[in-house]
Amino acid sequence: MFVAAPRNPLARHGVELDGAILTRALTHRSAGRDNYERLEFLGDALVNTIISIGLYQRYARAAEGDLTRLRAALIRESSLAEIARSLNLSDYLLLGSGELKSGGFRRDSILADTLEALVAAVFLHHGWDECRRLVDALFESAFAKVDPEAAKDSKTRLQELLQGRGLGLPEYRLIDSHGKDHDKTFVMACEVVALGTAAQATGRSRKHAEQAAAEAVLTLLANGAGA
Amino acid sequence: MFVAAPRNPLARHGVELDGAILTRALTHRSAGRDNYERLEFLGDALVNTIISIGLYQRYARAAEGDLTRLRAALIRESSLAEIARSLNLSDYLLLGSGELKSGGFRRDSILADTLEALVAAVFLHHGWDECRRLVDALFESAFAKVDPEAAKDSKTRLQELLQGRGLGLPEYRLIDSHGKDHDKTFVMACEVVALGTAAQATGRSRKHAEQAAAEAVLTLLANGAGA
Repeated sequence: MFVAAPRNPLARHGVELDGAILTRALTHRSAGRDNYERLEFLGDALVNTIISIGLYQRYARAAEGDLTRLRAALIRESSLAEIARSLNLSDYLLLGSGELKSGGFRRDSILADTLEALVAAVFLHHGWDECRRLVDALFESAFAKVDPEAAKDSKTRLQELLQGRGLGLPEYRLIDSHGKDHDKTFVMACEVVALGTAAQATGRSRKHAEQAAAEAVLTLLANGAGA
Repeated sequence: MFVAAPRNPLARHGVELDGAILTRALTHRSAGRDNYERLEFLGDALVNTIISIGLYQRYARAAEGDLTRLRAALIRESSLAEIARSLNLSDYLLLGSGELKSGGFRRDSILADTLEALVAAVFLHHGWDECRRLVDALFESAFAKVDPEAAKDSKTRLQELLQGRGLGLPEYRLIDSHGKDHDKTFVMACEVVALGTAAQATGRSRKHAEQAAAEAVLTLLANGAGA
């Protein structure tokens, strides 16, 4: 029995897509001039924005720096490739013979790019609402796996870690500040006296420098300091 | 006569915005905890996407690399600050006393960030369609000023430049290629015989290397070679 390959990898998500735009979204540059590169340009931006919206709404108290960190984790190439694999995109890709032989259909970069191109195709064909619905659905389990710890700022995480070990609060001290009023740099120290561990860091405000110093201490502790 | 300052800088664009979200979008971190930093995170992504859509649709034949270059020019800090100034955002900003004294309301970075925060506020309050309409309107004259030359690829620009001087076509030669099938690097030379000017460049495909070599020759010519 001959079973025709399903043409539209998004059918399981209830998204209709066919014709030239679907073919283009699945075509790697090794397979022709009419490939997914322009769509990928657009899809990359769309994914970035829809994930940003999701994070903004889910983590209503997270600072901008934490949102940026979470977004980077969600949309890095390997994360996108994992979603692409869940759609079996490898089976739909149109590759040139060189890429086919060398296993391009398994490569993270090609899988991630194709996913982004498909997102752009859905936007162009169905509009914003459908595109957002699709991206939210595609990233649902990735969002669920996001470490909520990572959304907490560094000072909070350090404080909770020390409390968990029955230790006192870390101490923060201003070491130095320099530069003009509107362009100052602050140097803050963070010390965990009970563990004999301390670090310094700089920032554009006391608060930013404190967070960076706390993050540095967290890294030291994760690497075995104070153990 | 006392004239109350208009509170909403987007009123002239027919966008209603008030209350807590407007205040937050206009509040610099120097003026309080409830400031625009989270909104800026979201607005930055939204502007990036809406400009990407505009470029994708306006330049239907531009390669992904050219779209990326045009986008970078449109959304760089100084471009956003110029739009912010056209809205007189300086008059609406809420700054701490230090920033006020040092003229923070004139600074490109603060103006650009506030503009992005306002875009996010419009998205959250009015949704995608209104947000896109606003961004398209705000960037209308910036789009009109984009150099269409910049959207042409380097080989096309070099060819047109030489034709304008009544000279022949440049010559492209493959100098070298190395690496495995799926990860090859190509070295191409581009030579303008009549001007005694040539350059070499590398790329992941012959086409990319040719474009890079043509770009290198354009740079040489702009710097006086062959004159």
